[in-house]
Amino acid sequence: MQKAKPKRRRNTLPGADDFPFRSECSISRTLELLGDKWTLLIVRDLLWHGKHTFKELADAEGIPTNLLSGRLQRLIDWGLADREQYQDNPVRYRYYLTDAGMALEDTLIQVMTWGNRYLGGGFYDRKQSIR
Amino acid sequence: MQKAKPKRRRNTLPGADDFPFRSECSISRTLELLGDKWTLLIVRDLLWHGKHTFKELADAEGIPTNLLSGRLQRLIDWGLADREQYQDNPVRYRYYLTDAGMALEDTLIQVMTWGNRYLGGGFYDRKQSIR
Repeated sequence: MQKAKPKRRRNTLPGADDFPFRSECSISRTLELLGDKWTLLIVRDLLWHGKHTFKELADAEGIPTNLLSGRLQRLIDWGLADREQYQDNPVRYRYYLTDAGMALEDTLIQVMTWGNRYLGGGFYDRKQSIR
Repeated sequence: MQKAKPKRRRNTLPGADDFPFRSECSISRTLELLGDKWTLLIVRDLLWHGKHTFKELADAEGIPTNLLSGRLQRLIDWGLADREQYQDNPVRYRYYLTDAGMALEDTLIQVMTWGNRYLGGGFYDRKQSIR
């Protein structure tokens, strides 16, 4: 009899089942995926600032386009973002966050709170969000 | 008459005054400092897991020692960590977080919560913390 595959927990992303994370630690896993200087800024722009096209995202932060491209693809591969085609010729996509991507909002808020308090950065009132 | 330097806000770290951050955004500033795969794991080990010597920190996560060295120095330079010598020959230090470093706990908790929910990582009960 074939052994049943362990049941995935309700929200766990499909890619997480077989990915060779280097640790069981949730912080380590999250950093393996999102621990860099850019990814959370893309999430921020998708979530709060109404930036959804490649050009809008590239212009917003000055992220090199090859990096933006790679980060968006990774967000899509993991199920944190998705895209829909809005133009044919040339083909253009709009990017948006899935529920799993939007669930990073609490992390963004804590990162912002710390940076506001200790690095003198601005505090964004997310009631102004344009999604 | 010399113009008075704008008064630093109460908690802002000294290094933040003149640092050429690429953005006013608190998230962007925090990521410029801490946005990588290792730094928050070092903070986690100092904060929750009672790891304070270089060897303890290096063994905990398998971080390459040259990277650990650089990350610890950056944490100290920015005032998120400090060190005290506990041995003379050879010279050895114990590292610990300052208040600004400990204030990253809320960020750690959110990162952990997300990784637990979406990547199937463990959830650490910080009542077990050994500081």
